[in-house]
Amino acid sequence: MTRIPFSEMKATIKMAFTLAGMPDDKAEVCARIHAESSRDGVYSHGLNRVERFVEYIGKGWVDVNAEPVLDRDLGALEVYNGNLGPGITNAIFAMNRATEIAAKNGLGLVSLNNTTHWMRGGAFGWQAAEKGFIGICWTNTESCMPAWGGTSSAIGNNPFIMAIPREEGHVVLDMAMSQYSYGKLQVTRLKNQQLPYPGGFDAQGDLTSDPGAIEETRRILPMGYWKGSGFAIMLDLISSLLSGGLTSAAIDKLGKGSCTSCCQIFIAIDPLKINTQEFIDKVLNETIDQLRSSTPVAEGGEINYPGERSLKTRKDNMEHGIPVDDGVWATVRALAGLSC
Amino acid sequence: MTRIPFSEMKATIKMAFTLAGMPDDKAEVCARIHAESSRDGVYSHGLNRVERFVEYIGKGWVDVNAEPVLDRDLGALEVYNGNLGPGITNAIFAMNRATEIAAKNGLGLVSLNNTTHWMRGGAFGWQAAEKGFIGICWTNTESCMPAWGGTSSAIGNNPFIMAIPREEGHVVLDMAMSQYSYGKLQVTRLKNQQLPYPGGFDAQGDLTSDPGAIEETRRILPMGYWKGSGFAIMLDLISSLLSGGLTSAAIDKLGKGSCTSCCQIFIAIDPLKINTQEFIDKVLNETIDQLRSSTPVAEGGEINYPGERSLKTRKDNMEHGIPVDDGVWATVRALAGLSC
Repeated sequence: MTRIPFSEMKATIKMAFTLAGMPDDKAEVCARIHAESSRDGVYSHGLNRVERFVEYIGKGWVDVNAEPVLDRDLGALEVYNGNLGPGITNAIFAMNRATEIAAKNGLGLVSLNNTTHWMRGGAFGWQAAEKGFIGICWTNTESCMPAWGGTSSAIGNNPFIMAIPREEGHVVLDMAMSQYSYGKLQVTRLKNQQLPYPGGFDAQGDLTSDPGAIEETRRILPMGYWKGSGFAIMLDLISSLLSGGLTSAAIDKLGKGSCTSCCQIFIAIDPLKINTQEFIDKVLNETIDQLRSSTPVAEGGEINYPGERSLKTRKDNMEHGIPVDDGVWATVRALAGLSC
Repeated sequence: MTRIPFSEMKATIKMAFTLAGMPDDKAEVCARIHAESSRDGVYSHGLNRVERFVEYIGKGWVDVNAEPVLDRDLGALEVYNGNLGPGITNAIFAMNRATEIAAKNGLGLVSLNNTTHWMRGGAFGWQAAEKGFIGICWTNTESCMPAWGGTSSAIGNNPFIMAIPREEGHVVLDMAMSQYSYGKLQVTRLKNQQLPYPGGFDAQGDLTSDPGAIEETRRILPMGYWKGSGFAIMLDLISSLLSGGLTSAAIDKLGKGSCTSCCQIFIAIDPLKINTQEFIDKVLNETIDQLRSSTPVAEGGEINYPGERSLKTRKDNMEHGIPVDDGVWATVRALAGLSC
């Protein structure tokens, strides 16, 4: 397996985005986030997603020059029109603005309507945590999952992120509403493996761990069955109502690319306005200690806090290079104008 | 099965709380919420929970006279000490205060430290929605579930609620982090039935739908496996950090009753400050229409929006009386000083 140094991956992606017409500052930020996603092990939304993003620019589904514009200012809550600008730069702007409001009011919420795919949602949780803020964010998406009780696609796989700053490593949850992504189904099928737990329904309507059977029915399973289904519906409705933007149902009608004209919510809170650093450290450490002192399922097993495995992958990939699929890497190099 | 009219149930519970030493106004509110929970089908936290609540008062774990007191005011975020007052009246105060802040700032967050069991968390989502606000709230609890990868209890089953006002029936999600509650396991076992889907692990460490086997290992399953586990950890940490109160790990060390000295978060947002009523109606209706036009799993099956089934149960129970367990009803009548 080829492993590419972070700096080389980032520079290559940046060239691809620049050639696609993106201004230098935006290309720099977007390339960094894509490379960081691969670096942290979120391969599906890092390097692997570059080609599709360039395609979207070509189709005019992403406006590389657009900036978010203030729609409404309610004090602790601001609404912006994302103007179909790059999802990554829009989201970075919004989370940053939420932290600025929080610095003043204790709490800030920024919503975006009419934005585009933000790639790895966790990036904006890490962003808030890096700045010392608790961050909560989510996006809606086009429909790609049946609601509980149905067999046809009706709800989005809306990712939800919560992040807490911690010096030794931020605590970050980044989860979509399906038990597994379509990317995970594909990777597992190509390896001729089964999913560790059932991930959807087969043609007979039975729960199955066979990824190919689920890809055929497209009945992926919401996490927690009815719970993930209900949560996805709420995240969709609230993102639309807080931003004045499109629901999953309305995005479906547009019939454009994934997440085109979606809505996103960014919440920031400064924990140091409420507590001393000493208290914060105590809270985080007593909880992580309690997790680590659990009896593990397998002897020698580890119980990780949310985000811990990303950090381990990051360390390994920074040391040894980021693993890439040779075909994907060649494609991105070609998009960057480099010879294969 | 005996069915008791709502008004009789509420009046009886109120007498029980008054006899336990609760002031009249608090007894009235708590009795209403308990009766409403049973009315809406949340039997575990309605009438069935009265005896245990009275016990907690007797042990001094709930102070029937306490009121929440402001700890810190950051503008859009206020922190209150719940002073171990009744969880229900503290939570109603906090959600109401969050809506007052939201009316001014667009968004309000109230956190409570040192409060007690709020019974049915959904009650405070319905409360916000009744007042025309989007409500989001959650609580932490003592540990009662293994974290993912562990077999010993390490994390809380922290319920999470999202509510959206809607004239024809509010949209309300009320979910705990385990796939099934211990109450559901018990009820299913007593009926000699299996759970519809695996709900935990048996003594061999295998996933099982046998409720008794899970009650024995106490390895209940977080919804969505690792996802519900991570979400529970984040809700716990954030509730503690935003209120300056105890984490699940710290509550465990107290060794008192369920949720004694827990933390709760209440967020309110006024959607009419962002949108017209016409837009709000469109958003809600287009999504509910999309759900309803899904292909159902079984012919004639219905796909419900979150909260819809509660409303149906409410209607039925208001018409025909609220079903009660005869033993539980006799106990509460005895606590109310009534003859059996």
